[in-house]
Amino acid sequence: MRETAPREATRQETAPPYPRTDRTVPTRSADRASYDRDLVHAILDEAYVCHLGFVRDGAPVVLPTLYARVGEHLYVHGSTGSRPLRMTGRAPEGLPVCLTVTHVDGLVLARSAFHHSINYRAVVVHGLAYDVTDPAEKRAALDALVDHVVPGRSADSRPANKKELAATAVIRLDLTEVSAKLRTGGVNDEPEDLALPHWAGVVPVQRVYGTPVPDPLLAPGTELPSYLTESTC
Amino acid sequence: MRETAPREATRQETAPPYPRTDRTVPTRSADRASYDRDLVHAILDEAYVCHLGFVRDGAPVVLPTLYARVGEHLYVHGSTGSRPLRMTGRAPEGLPVCLTVTHVDGLVLARSAFHHSINYRAVVVHGLAYDVTDPAEKRAALDALVDHVVPGRSADSRPANKKELAATAVIRLDLTEVSAKLRTGGVNDEPEDLALPHWAGVVPVQRVYGTPVPDPLLAPGTELPSYLTESTC
Repeated sequence: MRETAPREATRQETAPPYPRTDRTVPTRSADRASYDRDLVHAILDEAYVCHLGFVRDGAPVVLPTLYARVGEHLYVHGSTGSRPLRMTGRAPEGLPVCLTVTHVDGLVLARSAFHHSINYRAVVVHGLAYDVTDPAEKRAALDALVDHVVPGRSADSRPANKKELAATAVIRLDLTEVSAKLRTGGVNDEPEDLALPHWAGVVPVQRVYGTPVPDPLLAPGTELPSYLTESTC
Repeated sequence: MRETAPREATRQETAPPYPRTDRTVPTRSADRASYDRDLVHAILDEAYVCHLGFVRDGAPVVLPTLYARVGEHLYVHGSTGSRPLRMTGRAPEGLPVCLTVTHVDGLVLARSAFHHSINYRAVVVHGLAYDVTDPAEKRAALDALVDHVVPGRSADSRPANKKELAATAVIRLDLTEVSAKLRTGGVNDEPEDLALPHWAGVVPVQRVYGTPVPDPLLAPGTELPSYLTESTC
């Protein structure tokens, strides 16, 4: 909360925080939770793989999948045959899901084993997923899914044809019951441990992109697009 | 499966694959699934943050958390006050969970929007989580959790004292119902799209470690340990 307080204060009128609910207030480390809308959007926009949870036969299932944010909606897509999408298609009342996105930013090495930790930023979204049947919304969601991974890419690829659209299911989850949880900063050792001879500190963790590897069958003269040279520098 | 076939064939006697179950055979892209024990272990050992799913009031909850593997057991720890750990402590019959680990290895940019994909390696574990009450198993699990993030670290930090042990809950999930799912390789465009002028290929994605940032209160003369200089090169 500390990190985002100034931004929340100045932007409150345009972006009110998400409401706290029983499900979004953690039972521990509540000081690490945030409901700041801009912060939640930033965490969601920086990643593209989420972990989607749903319940099947009373047991939880968690699958990694791509997602995209469009305003206050999240979209997930997949084959019409995939389980959560098929289950959503059969649930006009909505399928209860939990969509979680996590960035790992650092390893926190304390002098004591107990205070070892991870610097991270996570967003947890609770809600009902609905099958997207409106053709225009479905197309826009598919463009957003491609652009969420590589901004500008949907305009530089062949759009889905009828057959491909029919084979693809899209589900929507609204950002209504949402929280961010994050740990930032350094080591929190006990005062009596400070003199111990163990190294303590933070090892930064980052996701980096390597040099793009072109498809061997690329049409002659096809240049690497600028949106890739810029994002992979 | 293709990638692991030779290894599976030669090591079958020492490491039989995990059995296929209704929950571990995907409804789509079954060719991307693997039950190879060594492959599953390798994917689990390379990461340290998983997404743990459980059911609360009939709805799924997915939380990021650290984990460690010890043989065919996975361990997760946390405050005794955290929800899934508290729920497990109150469920002597075991809490149904799903633990998922995902590595993103590359962005696959196809000429067609439809064939865009991600190269990834994931492991999904279904099962019952049990509260670890045996003191020796709990201590070993806590050491494994620290060493899973930074190998060798548990021996170079102050072990948990009685109060810290009492404040920490550890749960165990056995590797019995397990599958890996992975996509590797290049672009799979339709033959009729190959001449399109869009760039296609794979952008590699990697997790890298930055220069360790020492705690400002480090005891004088404390050197960066060798297990950090080696892992962060």
